[in-house]
Amino acid sequence: MSFDIQKTIEKLNHEISTYNFGENPNELYDPIEYILSLGGKRIRPLLTCLGSYLFDDDVEKAIMPSLGVEVFHNFSLMHDDIMDKAPLRRGKETVHTKWNDNIAILSGDAMLVKSYDFLLKVAPTLLPEVIQEFNKCACEVCEGQQFDMNFETLETVTEGEYIEMIKLKTAVLLGFALKLGAIIGGADKESAENLYKFGVNIGIGFQLKDDLLDVFGEQSKVGKQVGGDIISNKKTYLLIQALNLANTEQKAILDEWISKTEFDATEKVKAITQIYHEIGIKALAEQKMNEYFDGGFAYLEKVEANQEKKAFLAEFSKSLINREK
Amino acid sequence: MSFDIQKTIEKLNHEISTYNFGENPNELYDPIEYILSLGGKRIRPLLTCLGSYLFDDDVEKAIMPSLGVEVFHNFSLMHDDIMDKAPLRRGKETVHTKWNDNIAILSGDAMLVKSYDFLLKVAPTLLPEVIQEFNKCACEVCEGQQFDMNFETLETVTEGEYIEMIKLKTAVLLGFALKLGAIIGGADKESAENLYKFGVNIGIGFQLKDDLLDVFGEQSKVGKQVGGDIISNKKTYLLIQALNLANTEQKAILDEWISKTEFDATEKVKAITQIYHEIGIKALAEQKMNEYFDGGFAYLEKVEANQEKKAFLAEFSKSLINREK
Repeated sequence: MSFDIQKTIEKLNHEISTYNFGENPNELYDPIEYILSLGGKRIRPLLTCLGSYLFDDDVEKAIMPSLGVEVFHNFSLMHDDIMDKAPLRRGKETVHTKWNDNIAILSGDAMLVKSYDFLLKVAPTLLPEVIQEFNKCACEVCEGQQFDMNFETLETVTEGEYIEMIKLKTAVLLGFALKLGAIIGGADKESAENLYKFGVNIGIGFQLKDDLLDVFGEQSKVGKQVGGDIISNKKTYLLIQALNLANTEQKAILDEWISKTEFDATEKVKAITQIYHEIGIKALAEQKMNEYFDGGFAYLEKVEANQEKKAFLAEFSKSLINREK
Repeated sequence: MSFDIQKTIEKLNHEISTYNFGENPNELYDPIEYILSLGGKRIRPLLTCLGSYLFDDDVEKAIMPSLGVEVFHNFSLMHDDIMDKAPLRRGKETVHTKWNDNIAILSGDAMLVKSYDFLLKVAPTLLPEVIQEFNKCACEVCEGQQFDMNFETLETVTEGEYIEMIKLKTAVLLGFALKLGAIIGGADKESAENLYKFGVNIGIGFQLKDDLLDVFGEQSKVGKQVGGDIISNKKTYLLIQALNLANTEQKAILDEWISKTEFDATEKVKAITQIYHEIGIKALAEQKMNEYFDGGFAYLEKVEANQEKKAFLAEFSKSLINREK
């Protein structure tokens, strides 16, 4: 039993920073190196390595393929940032801001192709399954982003629709990351599938946690403005449920704040948070989040692998759950 | 010996129109079906089928993988049209015009992923080579598009830079289409490579032909405005060479027309065509085009396959060369 999280992250970062994505024209390749250099916790490739480790001590062969997941994730951020007109990503200029929209589109396209280059590093006999599963996941991520954009102009979104959207947009990639590891490690089909479901469920939990932290996190720990989602009318689990559960009076207040184009940000955050308190949104969201975490861990239990290794993966996942930013 | 071009096109169109790309959300999948329904001559998948046919009578197994090339080609058109702000494609609204930019970005992303779904239909043992070659080609197509965009703001572009750009942007995909067929048909490595070079060379020739037809084609046959490239200052082989070879006086006239924002289109086409005549651009471009066609056919000769089948592919290619639109 030895899996060193820190050393694995260092190895992943080393491979990313020394990989030759291409050189000419530099407008195509510089943005790829730029977005990958912005950091991030490398959670997805780590999950692939941990997924492989459950079934095989030799994690080395998971390293390069795992970066396919990381490159894909960053590709999706690059294109999402264009669509969302986001000026900043991890505190730095987004690609379409630093360069322009066309470069971000095209560089993202090349990056999506590059993610398959990393997946090619699996054993040849595994490739058909790996590509097939990846394609399914990649299309689902696109579906999730489209649903998310559609929600912006919808009057009402149900809880179920929201959960389905975050499942597609963010959770299935965590599931795929783990399943890719399982495939590389030589897992049986059922364990690979249970590991996938573990990933999807905790992924949904993570997103609900994100939604909660935006409003109920501590400014000093979250590292970004508390209530940012409230200020921008982002349709989070909290807002969607508040709109669904509000009484007539509360609904009127919510609608008024949402429709205001000029307002004092602090007042808006305070007013909407007040309604969240009245409705008990925090407890509702926490309950939902814990359902998904518990559901996820139940799937992990079913995975047929060394208990100690499973406990290690569970502990790592809990450390992500308990983060405060 | 029996390869029926028309029947193969019908089969390709049938597979395209009955394939289930996905349904929900329809903003993601409708544009894929829309752009693929706009027609096009299906030259790329045909080349894959013909490439396979050189080495194996059974073309059936090339049909589905060949559509990976067609889907990729249409993905690249969808994204290029956003970047070029093109309102029309094959006489119909482009995706970003009919829907919007974000939908065209995301739908294109899903489409790029779908092209790998079709490539997955090759025999599993062939998949690593197929994906590797496809990735190389796909990145080159992105490189070509970026060079093309860079050229728009460059003062001078050399003949060599232009040829390299069109090679990447359009020719390598024809080379890959043929090579994919060769791999599926079981060709030896050298023949597959020679077939690839055949495709790249005739692909460069096709683009030079396109540049020529814009100015010297017959209105009634070309089916679009003669001189469209001249009107829009498109840096074609003709304009690039004219700018490179013009004397001081001719250069001044070219520069004046290029910088005019308001002008009579017919006059501009007439004036610039006049300079092309003076410099002898038509003969130069035709000579260059024929060099690439001849070079291409020399590679086809080296391919080790049935002579009759090679003659059939050569004849089909010549029918594309001799098109007048």
